[in-house]
Amino acid sequence: MTGRFTVTYRVRSTAADIDARARAIAVEQSVEMPLAAIDDETVLSGIVGTVDGVTGLGDGLFDVRVGLATATVGRDAGQFLNMLFGNTSLHEDVVLHDVAVPDTLVDLFGGPRHGIAGLRHRLRLHGRALTASALKPQGLPSERLALLAERLARGGLDFIKDDHGLADQDYSRFADRLRACAAGVARGARATGHPTRYVPSLTGNLDQMRAQAALAREEGIDCVMLAPMICGFPAMQALVRSFPDMAFFAHPSLGGAARIAPALLIGGLFRLLGADAVIFPTHGGRFGYSQETCRRLAGNARRGDDGMKPALPVPAGGIALERVGEILDFYGADTMLLIGGSLLLARDRIVKETERFTRAVANHTPSQDRADGQ
Amino acid sequence: MTGRFTVTYRVRSTAADIDARARAIAVEQSVEMPLAAIDDETVLSGIVGTVDGVTGLGDGLFDVRVGLATATVGRDAGQFLNMLFGNTSLHEDVVLHDVAVPDTLVDLFGGPRHGIAGLRHRLRLHGRALTASALKPQGLPSERLALLAERLARGGLDFIKDDHGLADQDYSRFADRLRACAAGVARGARATGHPTRYVPSLTGNLDQMRAQAALAREEGIDCVMLAPMICGFPAMQALVRSFPDMAFFAHPSLGGAARIAPALLIGGLFRLLGADAVIFPTHGGRFGYSQETCRRLAGNARRGDDGMKPALPVPAGGIALERVGEILDFYGADTMLLIGGSLLLARDRIVKETERFTRAVANHTPSQDRADGQ
Repeated sequence: MTGRFTVTYRVRSTAADIDARARAIAVEQSVEMPLAAIDDETVLSGIVGTVDGVTGLGDGLFDVRVGLATATVGRDAGQFLNMLFGNTSLHEDVVLHDVAVPDTLVDLFGGPRHGIAGLRHRLRLHGRALTASALKPQGLPSERLALLAERLARGGLDFIKDDHGLADQDYSRFADRLRACAAGVARGARATGHPTRYVPSLTGNLDQMRAQAALAREEGIDCVMLAPMICGFPAMQALVRSFPDMAFFAHPSLGGAARIAPALLIGGLFRLLGADAVIFPTHGGRFGYSQETCRRLAGNARRGDDGMKPALPVPAGGIALERVGEILDFYGADTMLLIGGSLLLARDRIVKETERFTRAVANHTPSQDRADGQ
Repeated sequence: MTGRFTVTYRVRSTAADIDARARAIAVEQSVEMPLAAIDDETVLSGIVGTVDGVTGLGDGLFDVRVGLATATVGRDAGQFLNMLFGNTSLHEDVVLHDVAVPDTLVDLFGGPRHGIAGLRHRLRLHGRALTASALKPQGLPSERLALLAERLARGGLDFIKDDHGLADQDYSRFADRLRACAAGVARGARATGHPTRYVPSLTGNLDQMRAQAALAREEGIDCVMLAPMICGFPAMQALVRSFPDMAFFAHPSLGGAARIAPALLIGGLFRLLGADAVIFPTHGGRFGYSQETCRRLAGNARRGDDGMKPALPVPAGGIALERVGEILDFYGADTMLLIGGSLLLARDRIVKETERFTRAVANHTPSQDRADGQ
């Protein structure tokens, strides 16, 4: 745990102020006190943040690169987030833009345990994009959700996940829902012969999530979802370590509010913590992420040059069936398309509509303009 | 768990679009799917979010009030946050502005277990504002931090907390630091006769934080700090419940980045989860919170009309000693002043400088312009 890692903050500032702002951020994110009050040479040389560069981007925006001591992270993912953006998050004109994760932290957090290859292996599926949908609305009893799960599975989907609103509510307790939906998906999968996976959403505190993951494992489930910004980075770190056989899907809930660049938070940090698949709102849906943001996010998730496995990008958030071709052209085959509401609108025809989705993905012929630039 | 609670979102929109935006938020934060795809009457009438009102604020801003079903929260503070702002956080033009917490959730989460009265009781202190400082910089070995803790205690402070950057790093492991600093504060307190409290910062996952809190209890410590946005709401909920004898200080780390109104997040939600004291960056310091934001935040923390105990507001973030009078006039006596760097700058004269701080608070004569309007 020696050495430093470089964090890039995107700061709105005047040119006259930017050098002072940069130094202030370097101090705030390390010792958080006046340097004149520090008499310890080791702290001054080894712990205080360094300004490694300032780049003007025009229009009053600057990228400030700060070197932080790796030793300050300890072994905790929460402390890593604290070091990256704890107090500086309180400055409204600063975005946490990027971080160059050093090898020691790659080794510590480990990234995806399964990644794209592991997810494909489970589905015995190579060469085409993957498909997913979500069980909703919350408020339905478990048996209704299980029936929906079965019908979606009969449509040939690869993954069927809980809506992130499904938690452990009285109208559908986690354990009941898990058993019912796992059985529903299994019935559908037997009908098609395709090994569709059910992905339950883990919620609550670490004790509760751990018990839920153990229950899922007992039911033969090998994929789970969580929302890192809701459960906290430390809980995710612990779960990924405790359940190395599980593939983890990361949900972006609360993640958009964090003034952390989505490409970094969802594509980068969630993967670093072990997400095998990262769900995010794609451009052109209900949310405002740009094409460029989505391209960078998918690129970060699929990186394979940093000692960690690539994670599967999962564009979602209001994809209409008609957009499957365009979306696949943009993201390429190492992608999972998550379509929820657009399938559910078919109501009684949902198996057929789901088949239309899974066929559209299976029969897609790649075109140009790939997100990963391949 | 019946009924609804009202959430207020502050939305930037055109007047022509705002009604559709409001309906979209109500759907996104509840069933997250097209209503046309829902055939269950219970869900349609009891779970789908309702738009309870839209108020124009001028300048393209609107307050949208949405009624969410209390049943969707279950019993988990993380799910509460998920329901409040999960997916809508992904819309950059929406701020989570306020929430009217219903009695069922007040009963569930419980608010401060000790609150202002409990903290005052520990210090045998009534009628004046409370004082605090922080142990830093991180990077110092535990024995150096303990020496600093002793000197700050000799200056007569009420609370001495870990800097939020102190975690469980190799250069100062939690257990060593806890014992050393608790002993340092105890030596200082014996010298002054004042029952100064040491407030260690809990970090890591729930297992780790629980072990740290237990260790603190063994050392006779009755106040701890955590950062709810770093450890996660579910972990905080579990700890507050497991350690009813502890007073909890909430640190705002990462909280400013959340696009949740600070008065709600820090003054409201942290208190709801059980924070007895809430630390926040005051106006006029290193951070950009306005007087009005600080006034509302302190007001929310000190509420006593909702079945929960008042929590102590702790303005911090670059308060110079010269501002003590002004700050106390603004916040009144039910306040804890947290001054770190400004004391540490005194270096060898730190005991004297701390005494100057504690005397300034003790001798303060209240003036007008109170934050709570009293």
